[in-house]
Amino acid sequence: MNQYHNPDSATIQQIVRRPQMDTSTLAAIIGDVFDNIEKRKDEALIEYTERFDKIRLSSLQATSAELVGAEHALPMALKTAIQQAYKNITLFHERQRTESIKIETQPGVMCWQQAVPIDRVGLYIPGGSAPLFSTVLMLAIPAKLAGCSEIVLCSPPNMHGQIHPAILYTAHLCGVTKVIKAGGAQAIAAMSIGTESVPKVDKLFGPGNQYVTAAKQKAFEKGTAIDMPAGPSEVLVFADNTGDPAFIASDLLAQAEHGVDSQVIFATTKLDLIEQVLAEIKQQETQLPRQEMTSIALEHSHAVSFDDVHTAFAFVNEYAPEHLIISADAPDQYVPLIKNAGSVFLGHYTPESAGDYASGTNHTLPTNGHAKAFSGVNLDAFFKKITFQQISDTGLDNLGPTIIQMAEAEQLQAHANAVKIRLNRS
Amino acid sequence: MNQYHNPDSATIQQIVRRPQMDTSTLAAIIGDVFDNIEKRKDEALIEYTERFDKIRLSSLQATSAELVGAEHALPMALKTAIQQAYKNITLFHERQRTESIKIETQPGVMCWQQAVPIDRVGLYIPGGSAPLFSTVLMLAIPAKLAGCSEIVLCSPPNMHGQIHPAILYTAHLCGVTKVIKAGGAQAIAAMSIGTESVPKVDKLFGPGNQYVTAAKQKAFEKGTAIDMPAGPSEVLVFADNTGDPAFIASDLLAQAEHGVDSQVIFATTKLDLIEQVLAEIKQQETQLPRQEMTSIALEHSHAVSFDDVHTAFAFVNEYAPEHLIISADAPDQYVPLIKNAGSVFLGHYTPESAGDYASGTNHTLPTNGHAKAFSGVNLDAFFKKITFQQISDTGLDNLGPTIIQMAEAEQLQAHANAVKIRLNRS
Repeated sequence: MNQYHNPDSATIQQIVRRPQMDTSTLAAIIGDVFDNIEKRKDEALIEYTERFDKIRLSSLQATSAELVGAEHALPMALKTAIQQAYKNITLFHERQRTESIKIETQPGVMCWQQAVPIDRVGLYIPGGSAPLFSTVLMLAIPAKLAGCSEIVLCSPPNMHGQIHPAILYTAHLCGVTKVIKAGGAQAIAAMSIGTESVPKVDKLFGPGNQYVTAAKQKAFEKGTAIDMPAGPSEVLVFADNTGDPAFIASDLLAQAEHGVDSQVIFATTKLDLIEQVLAEIKQQETQLPRQEMTSIALEHSHAVSFDDVHTAFAFVNEYAPEHLIISADAPDQYVPLIKNAGSVFLGHYTPESAGDYASGTNHTLPTNGHAKAFSGVNLDAFFKKITFQQISDTGLDNLGPTIIQMAEAEQLQAHANAVKIRLNRS
Repeated sequence: MNQYHNPDSATIQQIVRRPQMDTSTLAAIIGDVFDNIEKRKDEALIEYTERFDKIRLSSLQATSAELVGAEHALPMALKTAIQQAYKNITLFHERQRTESIKIETQPGVMCWQQAVPIDRVGLYIPGGSAPLFSTVLMLAIPAKLAGCSEIVLCSPPNMHGQIHPAILYTAHLCGVTKVIKAGGAQAIAAMSIGTESVPKVDKLFGPGNQYVTAAKQKAFEKGTAIDMPAGPSEVLVFADNTGDPAFIASDLLAQAEHGVDSQVIFATTKLDLIEQVLAEIKQQETQLPRQEMTSIALEHSHAVSFDDVHTAFAFVNEYAPEHLIISADAPDQYVPLIKNAGSVFLGHYTPESAGDYASGTNHTLPTNGHAKAFSGVNLDAFFKKITFQQISDTGLDNLGPTIIQMAEAEQLQAHANAVKIRLNRS
């Protein structure tokens, strides 16, 4: 880890800068994928799956027998754990439901706002060696709670044409309406355009590699909403002089095992804590299977100490971490200083892993500094808010002159006329 | 207007398709603007303003003397109207404030969500013959209510280096912190990158021409959030057999005067209402100053009749209009059928103009079918929701085994270890 003490603002700008992911070189590839799916739909999707996942599928959709059967393929302990996480995530997201609001802004002028579920959503779950069933929980639970009528999940099959039973089991548990065996940019293109097997969706959610990310950008340009721009996962651990080196090291390592491009930052107001944390990392690392990966991730990571706590949090907010851990006996004192973060973990017994899996909060969070303006996935992400208004004839008598005055000042006579014609009638 | 009766689904797909705005041809121009602003900051901004707005400014920022002085340049009646609109918009947006939510998902596991204002926002107000001060109200009021600390407004100056007093007056009234005399793609680039005079912002809001739209897309790619993708303004008027032809015609014309690319749709369950509305349009049009523009907009517009009300609303939802007017004696019966719309206007005395200016709802709304997944600008658009969690040692005793089970099933040993190391200590 690179070490800094009271860095100046130029250095801070360097530290907070994430590695740029340039997806523009992928534009031609992604453009072809979209064109191909647009023209040949399922046929193209089946061909891409054969090329990249090494299996020619006769049917893209997972059958209900596969979904139901997955339950028997999982150990009981894992199912119990998934059910506990399901329960907590459901509780926290259900609590986020907002009531519709209504107000008479002036006599006879009623205005209200109503949350209406997005009709059709698409969830992308990456493949790879480990089945990311936790992301199924994080995306499908709020989709179901919101009342989305179509919840499509795409995930690449293995070379036997199967999706991991933990993903199928979780999808079934959460009420996913259709599981499609397709991955990569072609899955994103299929959900954004629609094919014979894959419903066209209104909004896309979920993580993925650079091809998936570029495809989501393309889908956004073409009119499909997306959850948020993606980037490598990050953690920033802040500790004061009550920070626990072993716990901090374990959290930094947990982040580092996500990949060599993971961002790991340690900020502290206790200078000598850095050495202790580094020593702990060294020791714990030897017991972890992904040591090669974690060492590379830690090489380009930063440990920063500050004499002043406000300067430290100015840095935290400038970095705007996806995950922010506050390692302190009395973490509450720092909460008012937090302006930008995706999800915050307070105190010694609140590891990021808790929120990654099972405490109830969502783990799909803004990376790459986007926490300055983006929220993580939450119940609201599956709704749009529609405003309504109803004005009585008396209401328009009251409000009309204001509207006419403003419309004429903006030189929009027909806007004024739509009011005048009504005032003349009443 | 093109007329259809009970169109089949292929025809509906044609009707709902908006003219594609291809901004990819602008990519090179916009790329240059961003590069130029990045390198030469204010100097570049001043040059662009000289080239496009025909004035070489010595200072980009409007002075407080200009802001305060604007009040004296406006007629009292217009100021009173703006103040009434200000009051209504404030009431409706303040009502949208959400409380932070907190829940103990299981014993010892506290999760909460808190809305934190986006620190710095940038509002773009286009120039042109008419001053769009109403958009200043729609963007600056919720920004101020949310508590954004920096509210930057960019609008192009006239050839005398001035911004229209109605814009300055409204900006001052709403608490805009900085008014910058700059327009076009260069203003968007400046707010997204930051210059000596223009603060770098976290999120960009506001309408604009194709250059502004392309620049907002570019800013989004480079990491600045934006309110929503933009497109030409639209209205869909639905009427049952109680629809009022004169009122309907006035609303369609109000939409058509926005520009030749405006989208105007009339849908009805009363076939012969179409002829009556067309006759009314013909008559009212002659009294309006922008007749040339409205006729072109109406030429590529559609009037569609349906025998069945559910089919009619399937069409409405597929079109997903920015503005939806329900022209009926008893409009409430149709509210449950509305799935996709930006803002809805119910009953005979609720013209779109009311919401455009002064009733209290926002007029910055999703166009181009984006109402399927996007909300209009609202108070929440100026916040991000941060989740927090705090787990006690007993809480982790309870939840820990679930986390470990799931982390190991996803082959993330360091994630499991961050829990184990804590459980071993407690």
